Parts: sequence; structure tokens; C-alpha cells
Amino acid sequence: MAEFDVVGVGNAIVDVISIVDEAFIVENHLAKGSMSLIDAERATQLYASMPSGIESSGGSAANTMAGVASFGGRAAYIGKVRDDQLGEVFRHDIRSTGVSYDVPYATDGPPTARCLIQVTPDADRTLNTFLGISSLLSPDDIDPALVASAKLVYCEGYLWDIEIAKQAIRKAMDIGRASGAKTALTLSDSFCVERHRDEWLELIGSRVDIIFANETEICALYECDWDTAADKIAGQVEIACLTRHSSGSVIVTADERFAIGPEPCEQLVDTTGAGDLYAAGFLHGYARGLDLATCGRLGSLAAAEIIGHVGARPAIPLSTLR
Amino acid sequence: MAEFDVVGVGNAIVDVISIVDEAFIVENHLAKGSMSLIDAERATQLYASMPSGIESSGGSAANTMAGVASFGGRAAYIGKVRDDQLGEVFRHDIRSTGVSYDVPYATDGPPTARCLIQVTPDADRTLNTFLGISSLLSPDDIDPALVASAKLVYCEGYLWDIEIAKQAIRKAMDIGRASGAKTALTLSDSFCVERHRDEWLELIGSRVDIIFANETEICALYECDWDTAADKIAGQVEIACLTRHSSGSVIVTADERFAIGPEPCEQLVDTTGAGDLYAAGFLHGYARGLDLATCGRLGSLAAAEIIGHVGARPAIPLSTLR
Repeated sequence: MAEFDVVGVGNAIVDVISIVDEAFIVENHLAKGSMSLIDAERATQLYASMPSGIESSGGSAANTMAGVASFGGRAAYIGKVRDDQLGEVFRHDIRSTGVSYDVPYATDGPPTARCLIQVTPDADRTLNTFLGISSLLSPDDIDPALVASAKLVYCEGYLWDIEIAKQAIRKAMDIGRASGAKTALTLSDSFCVERHRDEWLELIGSRVDIIFANETEICALYECDWDTAADKIAGQVEIACLTRHSSGSVIVTADERFAIGPEPCEQLVDTTGAGDLYAAGFLHGYARGLDLATCGRLGSLAAAEIIGHVGARPAIPLSTLR
Repeated sequence: MAEFDVVGVGNAIVDVISIVDEAFIVENHLAKGSMSLIDAERATQLYASMPSGIESSGGSAANTMAGVASFGGRAAYIGKVRDDQLGEVFRHDIRSTGVSYDVPYATDGPPTARCLIQVTPDADRTLNTFLGISSLLSPDDIDPALVASAKLVYCEGYLWDIEIAKQAIRKAMDIGRASGAKTALTLSDSFCVERHRDEWLELIGSRVDIIFANETEICALYECDWDTAADKIAGQVEIACLTRHSSGSVIVTADERFAIGPEPCEQLVDTTGAGDLYAAGFLHGYARGLDLATCGRLGSLAAAEIIGHVGARPAIPLSTLR
């Protein structure tokens, strides 16, 4: 039996979350609903203009692994933090969810990554990421034995910015495929897709079994409408999980399509982590051998939980959701 | 006109908040509902056993000043953080609430203080404070011009542990009295009262105009029942604001008593900061020259807001409460 259901690879980030009004987004020239990379200077300037907030561990793939563990799955995480206070917070939180996390602290280089998040009254989230040490994840940080012990290897597109991190993702996927694991990729963000389209088309064609993408991401990848993009991705990967915001998701394979409805959410508060937790539910179900429609439903359940409160880590054990 | 309504002096702390069950309190030998001081080793050990959480700026008097500012009052804060990540978080958050905060970062010594907080299903909070640099607040950190420019000087009992911090409180109170300000003290915690009873009786008798205390604290101070304690404190200070948990509060002077009912709270979630925000409402009203019953009602309103969500800083502008 594989030791882990899923090993996730991504940017290890602590979120700094503030509730703002729409005017704040406009005044600070933020790309609403998207993820923008910011440098240390811009981070300082933007943070100074933000209202008081809360800090919570995040990182897309890390949120997904925390979700898998919350469902009762066996998850491991690979991502990089510094030996600083936010690094300690990140390590504490991911481990306390039951996720295996053994990447040692970096002892030099930039500080632990943080993402300045503005949540607007419409529950949309705008991400401004200071990548810090997280983007310097290298192939050396990919433990071959760990990756080979998982049924699924899940990588986040956000990590695809610096050459050594790309090598780290390729290495993880290659080890996974060699050991019989399925490889999964989330496109993460439409601006990421724009930046990396050609490389990702190559990556998807050569190394990816399962893809996660929302509407803007899959349309950006193929530069076309959603229906056409769905047809195209079906020929490229084994399974495409295409989320459609409040309409739920569609799971696409070469032969079949499953439309998955959204699950009810009592109060829509903060959509941060919705895609991450959808992936958690799907991957957990898939690792347990459930049918694709049920995997999608677990994704919808987890997404509905996460958008009902501030922050991108589950507030209740997802294993209690039915 | 005085430049500030209130200047607050206290331990500058970042809270680390986790939701736990009652068994966690028992298994970790925690003093439920109280504040325990912990050293770095115990902090590491306790943090490791805590579930994942969120970080939020706190500190009793800092919460109170944030509350005063949220009411629209002019507040300043004096407390000490290091030039580390949590120090930056603390400074950002207190300033972003509109509180004036100009104590420079300490560039050496222990790290910024943190308080490991366990919130149980009954909404009670258990505090475990690693004081770090905060307890080393010294008389040099008390800016005489700042203190002299306030109508009220508010000090927290939690700060009363290390000799130089005691000197800092005495200095702040002496400057306040010399400049015509009223001085206020919160007893903070019954264990604090036990540790410092004799010194505090002397401090109260010689330097304090307004006192804040809950039932266990005022009873611990005089080692007697509440009614007797209320009579005793009435002879010692000008105004005693005696909170009585879910029953509201009683404001006691030499001549009068005002019973203040609690304000409704939709859902009781986390009582962290309830006393701090009660003090904020009272002090704000007092600085604005409102009658004592109205001051108490503002305290109840602010306390009701803070216990309806996780964390000890207001989630909405308190100026909107009526």
C-alpha cells in the first residue's frame, strides 16, 4: 500500500487577511480576484495601507493537503520556509492538520513568503504574494522516496516562476510517474496561465494526468471559449476538473462528462481557498477509489465549507461533511 | 484641548488562537479561563500540541486602545515589540486601527511577545503568555509629553511583573496625575492579583482614580465576597467598574452605584478581549464627558461585539454601535 494518498508541492505561504471595501481595491490598483506577485518594497507599502488583519497559514497546495488530511486522507507536503517566526507558524499549522511536512527550515535567503489578501464584501479575494524563500524550492527539496510513496503527486501552478522551482515540479512529476502515481496540476490563476502558457501546454502534454482549472484559467490556456477549451483539455489529460464558480464543476474525461452541482453554503464570507479545497475533496476521493462524480461532490462539499468563513484552512473536520 | 483621550500602557502581544475541546485543557494542565505566564521552552511545547490556529494582534491595553479608536476616540499606546515579523504585525495592526503608536522597535533582546490562546466550546479563553520583550518596557519608553497630552492614562495589571515595567507604570501614572489626567488600572487577572496584592493595594491607594476588575479579581484583591469588596474599593478610588460576566457590570463610586445590563450578543463565540473592550467603551464615554451609566453601556456594547467573533480586536467600527 502506498504510504501517502497525496503529496503536494507548492509555495509555502502565510496569509495576511484583511476585510476591505471595493474602494480599497481601486485606490491601491489591485488586480481584483487574481494573484499578483509583489516585491518586498511593494509588500511594505501595500501592507501599510491595509487595515488590521489576521494571519493564517495558507499556500494553495498546502491548503489542499490540509484539506485531504481533514477528510482523513494521508497527505504530505513539500514547500519551503525560512527559520523565522512566520516559518514556524507555517510549519506548526500544516503539521497540526496531520499533514506530513519535513522540509527543513532554510537558514539563509529571503524570509518566509506571505500573501497580502484583501477580502471584499462580495467575498471575492485579491491576492498579493511576496514569494520570499518559497519560490526557491529546488529539486534537492524533492525527496524521491517521499514522492514515490504517494498515489498522487499534486503540484500548484503558482510555483512555476523561477527555474529551479520548475525543475523541482518536473522532478516530482517524473518520480511520481515512474512509481505509478498519477500526477495532478492546478493552473492556479489566469495571469499565471498567461505567463507560462507554452511551457504549461508542454508540461500538460508530457507529464500531467489530472488537471484542475477554473473558467478563466482553462480559457486562457487555450485562448478560446470554455466549451472549446473543455474539448481540447479532454484530449490532453486523463481527467480535467473544471470548476465553474457558483455553478459547481464539470469533470471531463476522453469519454465522459459529469456536471457537479455546488453544495449549499449558509453564508458566503471569503472565497479564499475555494479551488484548493475543491481539489482536496476530489483528490481524497480519487485516492480512495471513488467514482468521479463522488470525487467531484467531495470537492464541492469542501469548497462550500471553506467559503463560509475567513481563511483557507478548514474550520471543521471535513470528514464530518456528508 | 488634550491631544489624546486615552493613552494605554501594556504588554504588546500577538495572539495565537486555536479552537480546542475541554480535553485539551485538561491534558495540557492549563489554568482554564486565566492567564499563565510561560517561558520559551513551555511555549514551544504547548504550541506543538495546539491545533492549527490564526494569529491576531492583541495585548490587553492595546485591545482597549484599538477599541477607543474604533469608537472614534483619540488613543495612543505604549508597549514594546522587537524588530521581528510579529513585531511588524503588531505595529501594523495597532496603527491601522488609528491608534498612535511610536515606541521604536527593540533591536535586541527577546522576541515579540505572543499569547497562546485556547478557545473552548463554552467561548471561554485560556491565555498562556510568553512575555518576550514586552515585559521589559522601561521608564525610558514612557514619553512624558505624550502621557501629559492625554485626558486618561490607562495601565494594565498584566504588565506588573518585572521591576522596570512597574517603574514604567508608576512613571506614567505620576505624569498623568501631575498633568491633570485621570489614571486607570485594570486588575487583568485573578492570579495577577494574587501575585501582586500588597503592591497593588498601595498603588491603588496612592495613584489610581478608576479601576476595572471582574468578580474574581476584586474578590482576590480584598480576599472577601463581592459585596464587601465593592464597598472597600468604593473608599479607595473615584470610580470602580466592576464587571460581572454575563450579568453586565456595576459602576461604583463613593456615593452611587449603577447596575449596567449586558447587551445582546447574537452568538457567543470567544470571550477573549471582553474586559478590554468593556474598558474601551467606558473610557471613551468618560473622556467625552458622558454620564457614568452611559459610559458603562458603551462598555457593554463593545464587549458584546467582541465576544461574537474570534479575536480581541473589533470586527466592525464600534462607532456604529448604538
